[in-house]
Amino acid sequence: MAEKVRIAVDAMGGDHAPLEIVRGAVEAVSERDRIEVILVGLSEQVEAELAKYTYPKGRIQVVHASEVIATEEPPVMAIRKKKNSSIVVAMNMVKNGEADAFVSAGSSGAILVGGQLIVGRIKGIERPPLAPLIPTSKGVSLLIDCGANVDARPSHLVQFAKMGSIYMENVIGKKNPTVAIVNIGAEEEKGNALVKDTFPLLKNCSDINFIGSIEAREIPNGYADVIVCEAFVGNVILKLYEGVGSVFKTMLMQGLMSTTRSKIGALLVKPAVKKTLKSFDASEYGGAPLLGLKGLVVKTHGSSKAKEIKNSIIQCITFKEQQINEKIKKNLIQDEV
Amino acid sequence: MAEKVRIAVDAMGGDHAPLEIVRGAVEAVSERDRIEVILVGLSEQVEAELAKYTYPKGRIQVVHASEVIATEEPPVMAIRKKKNSSIVVAMNMVKNGEADAFVSAGSSGAILVGGQLIVGRIKGIERPPLAPLIPTSKGVSLLIDCGANVDARPSHLVQFAKMGSIYMENVIGKKNPTVAIVNIGAEEEKGNALVKDTFPLLKNCSDINFIGSIEAREIPNGYADVIVCEAFVGNVILKLYEGVGSVFKTMLMQGLMSTTRSKIGALLVKPAVKKTLKSFDASEYGGAPLLGLKGLVVKTHGSSKAKEIKNSIIQCITFKEQQINEKIKKNLIQDEV
Repeated sequence: MAEKVRIAVDAMGGDHAPLEIVRGAVEAVSERDRIEVILVGLSEQVEAELAKYTYPKGRIQVVHASEVIATEEPPVMAIRKKKNSSIVVAMNMVKNGEADAFVSAGSSGAILVGGQLIVGRIKGIERPPLAPLIPTSKGVSLLIDCGANVDARPSHLVQFAKMGSIYMENVIGKKNPTVAIVNIGAEEEKGNALVKDTFPLLKNCSDINFIGSIEAREIPNGYADVIVCEAFVGNVILKLYEGVGSVFKTMLMQGLMSTTRSKIGALLVKPAVKKTLKSFDASEYGGAPLLGLKGLVVKTHGSSKAKEIKNSIIQCITFKEQQINEKIKKNLIQDEV
Repeated sequence: MAEKVRIAVDAMGGDHAPLEIVRGAVEAVSERDRIEVILVGLSEQVEAELAKYTYPKGRIQVVHASEVIATEEPPVMAIRKKKNSSIVVAMNMVKNGEADAFVSAGSSGAILVGGQLIVGRIKGIERPPLAPLIPTSKGVSLLIDCGANVDARPSHLVQFAKMGSIYMENVIGKKNPTVAIVNIGAEEEKGNALVKDTFPLLKNCSDINFIGSIEAREIPNGYADVIVCEAFVGNVILKLYEGVGSVFKTMLMQGLMSTTRSKIGALLVKPAVKKTLKSFDASEYGGAPLLGLKGLVVKTHGSSKAKEIKNSIIQCITFKEQQINEKIKKNLIQDEV
């Protein structure tokens, strides 16, 4: 029988905690045999929620954490001071081997800081990137880095390209994934100083399938599987993706409701339009891993509901099964010694 | 009677030259009395196109330019070597006061380089930004800078904010336009080094309506009228806007055609959906001015058709009428002396 995967889940993180988080945990253990969830948070609240459901007992455990880190708190301070927060308690469980992974919809900043300070980087990894999947017309691409550590160096971007390739190949199942660097033109001589310095380094990597520059226009077409950029640019791409999609949806709905004729038509097109919009919704694709740490940390969207929490929890099975961290150590670190 | 506005138009620039360019010029002079167009390019081709139309003679003139700069040519070399190209000939007309403005759908790089080398910067302007209007759910915002000069300094961004405010207020008619800087969080302490250094400078500008940071997610909502960023980030925003919009449209159309039911509904919703998609189409809003030059240079999309060319030409009237360059000189340069 396959090994169990123990996942600590931040029961207090995100806009819909603990309600949707608890429901997501229940759905995850009901759907997959191999998962054990440890819900970390204010135990009274969490247990009250949990009492609403029927689920395989013994596969969800509650661990008390008396503090909560709010989204707007300065992350470094929060991680250092709030030793009993759900994020710090859960990350310590990952560090001590009591959990294989940690999933949270809480403060991005605190998760990024905690990942580095508590779970710790794999030796040789200069900077752990946050790597969400974004929907494209062909499926999904990995956008790496969207974290909080801006002003990256070329060597960081090279590590991102390698870690992203390993993740895309082993977790998402894309063989020999294509890698491109975000640029403002297709030619090698284009770009800012960082891109110009990074381009030849990527070109010389024998262990990735580097296909050159990608202009932002081509990202939604699925032109590359792994999209490398520094965190400021990645953050802009990720959030603009959400923003344009959301405004587009709202305006489309208003358009459909604008005339009697279109209202009648709207009833007929609704199922098809809904399906289309859904396939382009980032929340369908689970959380974003923080790669290069000694354990797995997954950040899901602050607005996550049960389904996204469930997907993020289930995602952790493949990560462990495919021994992503071992592959990162082997492929990246030996390279560089 | 109001003064004439003489606009040199690159008859050879863009994917649909000279056909759509000539048509756009004819439509512009037919629609507005004050415009005189000088079509610059291979005169035989241009005159053959022009012969197809009826228009007020004497208000369109053809000036021969024997060379054409292609999009893929290295811009600095192209501007220096091709003295008889439509871009160089037309820019010299602006420089020598034979034209008030230049409109081109040709090579962005060549237009940016030519603008600086031939037309020249207003004394004291450190870097001329390219500033397109982008559609939002509330109307339009000015995205400044989307040019080719990356790795900007804080003082550049401050000038962008001021020039963008003048343009938005006087050309677009937005009183006291709000200004925000693109950032990865709302708080002042967030951002990369450039944004952190620029933020306090913008905060201290008494002549702009600075409202702080804008996250990319809020751009399509029209959260700010003038969106300040360095060119690499601006380019990513502009192109991703186009890319997400275009993939969304394609997927929506596929969705509408996917079932018999939705096909019938599609016939009914088509006019309303078309109107919605159109309001979110950047090409509706004319070209992007290259601000801070001694004359007006407007870059329109390479795929521009007659309508966009016409809109870009008409836009030049307001620019001249509102004496934008004089206002830039007065507001920016005296400030800094």
